[in-house]
Amino acid sequence: MASMASILGRPASPSPLRHNNKSFSYQPSASFRLCRRRFVAGALCARAALIEPDGRRLVDLRVEPSKKDEKRIEAVALPKVKLSRIDLEWVHVLSEGWASPLSGFMRESEFLQTLHFNSLRLDDGSVVNMSVPIVLAIDDSQKQRIGDSKKIALIGSDNNPVAILSNVEIYKHPKEERIARTWGTTVPGLPYVEEAIKNAGNWLIGGDLEVIEPIKYHDGLDQFRLSPAELREEFARRNADAVFAFQLRNPVHNGHALLMTDTRRRLLEMGYKNPILLLHPLGGFTKADDVPLNWRMKQHEKVLEDGVLDPETTVISIFPSPMSYAGPTEVQWHAKARINAGANFYIVGRDPAGMGHPTEERDLYDADHGKLVLSIAPGLERLSILPFKVAAYDKTQGKMAFFDPSRPQDFLFISGTKMRTLARNKQNPPDGFMCPSGWKVLVEYYDSLTPSDHGQVKEAVPA
Amino acid sequence: MASMASILGRPASPSPLRHNNKSFSYQPSASFRLCRRRFVAGALCARAALIEPDGRRLVDLRVEPSKKDEKRIEAVALPKVKLSRIDLEWVHVLSEGWASPLSGFMRESEFLQTLHFNSLRLDDGSVVNMSVPIVLAIDDSQKQRIGDSKKIALIGSDNNPVAILSNVEIYKHPKEERIARTWGTTVPGLPYVEEAIKNAGNWLIGGDLEVIEPIKYHDGLDQFRLSPAELREEFARRNADAVFAFQLRNPVHNGHALLMTDTRRRLLEMGYKNPILLLHPLGGFTKADDVPLNWRMKQHEKVLEDGVLDPETTVISIFPSPMSYAGPTEVQWHAKARINAGANFYIVGRDPAGMGHPTEERDLYDADHGKLVLSIAPGLERLSILPFKVAAYDKTQGKMAFFDPSRPQDFLFISGTKMRTLARNKQNPPDGFMCPSGWKVLVEYYDSLTPSDHGQVKEAVPA
Repeated sequence: MASMASILGRPASPSPLRHNNKSFSYQPSASFRLCRRRFVAGALCARAALIEPDGRRLVDLRVEPSKKDEKRIEAVALPKVKLSRIDLEWVHVLSEGWASPLSGFMRESEFLQTLHFNSLRLDDGSVVNMSVPIVLAIDDSQKQRIGDSKKIALIGSDNNPVAILSNVEIYKHPKEERIARTWGTTVPGLPYVEEAIKNAGNWLIGGDLEVIEPIKYHDGLDQFRLSPAELREEFARRNADAVFAFQLRNPVHNGHALLMTDTRRRLLEMGYKNPILLLHPLGGFTKADDVPLNWRMKQHEKVLEDGVLDPETTVISIFPSPMSYAGPTEVQWHAKARINAGANFYIVGRDPAGMGHPTEERDLYDADHGKLVLSIAPGLERLSILPFKVAAYDKTQGKMAFFDPSRPQDFLFISGTKMRTLARNKQNPPDGFMCPSGWKVLVEYYDSLTPSDHGQVKEAVPA
Repeated sequence: MASMASILGRPASPSPLRHNNKSFSYQPSASFRLCRRRFVAGALCARAALIEPDGRRLVDLRVEPSKKDEKRIEAVALPKVKLSRIDLEWVHVLSEGWASPLSGFMRESEFLQTLHFNSLRLDDGSVVNMSVPIVLAIDDSQKQRIGDSKKIALIGSDNNPVAILSNVEIYKHPKEERIARTWGTTVPGLPYVEEAIKNAGNWLIGGDLEVIEPIKYHDGLDQFRLSPAELREEFARRNADAVFAFQLRNPVHNGHALLMTDTRRRLLEMGYKNPILLLHPLGGFTKADDVPLNWRMKQHEKVLEDGVLDPETTVISIFPSPMSYAGPTEVQWHAKARINAGANFYIVGRDPAGMGHPTEERDLYDADHGKLVLSIAPGLERLSILPFKVAAYDKTQGKMAFFDPSRPQDFLFISGTKMRTLARNKQNPPDGFMCPSGWKVLVEYYDSLTPSDHGQVKEAVPA
């Protein structure tokens, strides 16, 4: 994955931040060390150009190395709650400040503000966006075990302590209301609901989080999981004067690439000198028929090797959030988290964070609502929304191009479903839809599924 | 209803604003005329103390008298949409500016902001609260009839034009999503949904409203339906330096009265010289087992005759909105509308705008969520929320009193259901729960129902 390494940062010597990883040669930390030195020297000019995090300060809930042992010992004596995979992904998200200024799992006031207003009012009266509840469910017996304790330990699948939650508040988990207000439906078959809510406990526990050990997945991709602080340092190192984020959970085709390069062109036209693209695939929970992260990353690598995106102006990194498939509600979360990572432009397309209705022959959300809602969402006023032009396959040019409504007969729309069906059947899409090496990865992925795997997701289990 | 008249304003001679009404002797318009003269003379001092309406200007969508004929003629040639009873109540609400700054039925951007954020962002960047969609549904054939017309006429049950809607925008009516996001559930049996959404058309039409004739119901209660402008004038006339609103849709018992008098006492302690109570029963659609408006008004009259509330410091008026029973979402609407009527304090109790779950043995909403949500709702920062102390029947004193948690055994909680059951069975509540004359009205109401009427609502049909 050499080309991705060069996109992430310049080749560098090993550093103390190096992870145990054999399949990737790139060490992202060196450039960050350089960058830190520059900040120590007070050269904040480049960083100062980046958008401020929500709440003015990027939250970092990871315990200082010198305090880890103490916290581990403390955790042993506390009531314990075991984290599910999605819980751990949220711990990851919270710990690095993607949800700044949240300092832990939501208490009831934050939960209610999220459900009703998709935003939080801070003590100074300012408003930040927060559309998706980040909550931790416990059941009756866990609640009883916690009793009056104001602190609990959160433990991983190996029973080791991951974090401490302090000043806890336990409140009712109104599942039906949470689902209705977040997804705008209570229909069965919503992937996140089935996975993380339906069988969850009847209580929620909020509090302040202290994460003892940074969350790692040991899946060969950890070095692509840059925190918001690391991304900000990378953007500063590159002297970015604009950062535009592209959220994705699907393979990249040439329509996406066209859009990203065209966005950069527009930003240059607007007078920016050095707009940097944050190509930011989602790395947490996804639904069964989405392409798993490791295959998507392989596909992205091939697309990047193909030279469509310029390594000098592109940063690829993994966004650790789970996917809710909550359409207009969730796209706000996707955008807000990228503000915290330093992005001041956000590209939004048709039906962002949407999916097919689980029981009806239609999309769950109106395809235009996501971008409409995003453009008027409270707390996102500082973020410039760049609406997606629709790209389709132009048969006259033999490549992906922006749809021209004056000659609709010349264009072919290739949906995600169509793309998956073609790859599954080892058929080729029209030339110019996706680079052949990227397409090959998709075909290989579907080929790797045994018949019983078909449609089953294979995800890295965080360790 | 002489005592209510004296509470509304001082006895006065007939005026041009007098309505055709035989059963009420009070003419509210005289004092308003006086008041208007004072404004003409520039004596704005008292009015200036009242809270500003949302958007800084109280919307009035009623056509000037000199333009009515012209508008009627115009309406004849336009595509027509017949209004349901609830539609007409919303026309009433919009026309008088309760929903200021809304200038008509919501267009899609306003609808989406309401669903997702319970608030609207205005052109100047300020935010006003707006939690309940105020929308007009049309079906496929109506949409087809409207075609490309940018204006339509809204007609009443008698086929006469009520209003013109201009610069219309037609968009999809996402019923499931609207219900889920407004009520936090999609369970069957929600009264407003069953009445106004389930069988409504698949499209919504928004636009600017011009109301040709002020909405009247000819039910003997029209003179109690003061507009926000009229209420503001009444508060100014009384030199109110604080206005505290009490929304109700149930008979008033002595616990309510205690709360209202205690609130006034607290406001005086806070330094206000002349706090005025707006006793504001909801007058629009209510569910089948609520006590109908005309009986509630009779009951309120008896309670007031009993002298519990001071006529000098109380204004009773009818709030024309339909009831959605949407709990924490709707209580914001109830509060916001009262800002527009001049109230700067709002009393909120347990489970405001709530009801029992239609299919489960529990309340639909958490009893505390309403006041929590209200206290943090965007656009309501200017309104002081006065949380309800719980009043219950104190057996040791033989009257309603604030619940004392140190001696719970002394208190009796009489729920709405319990109260209705007692009245239906012609039994008496404990002495001191409600004045006997008010209780008698309730017993009479239930007695007036034929067996087939039991549980059926009898509402005035707007004409």
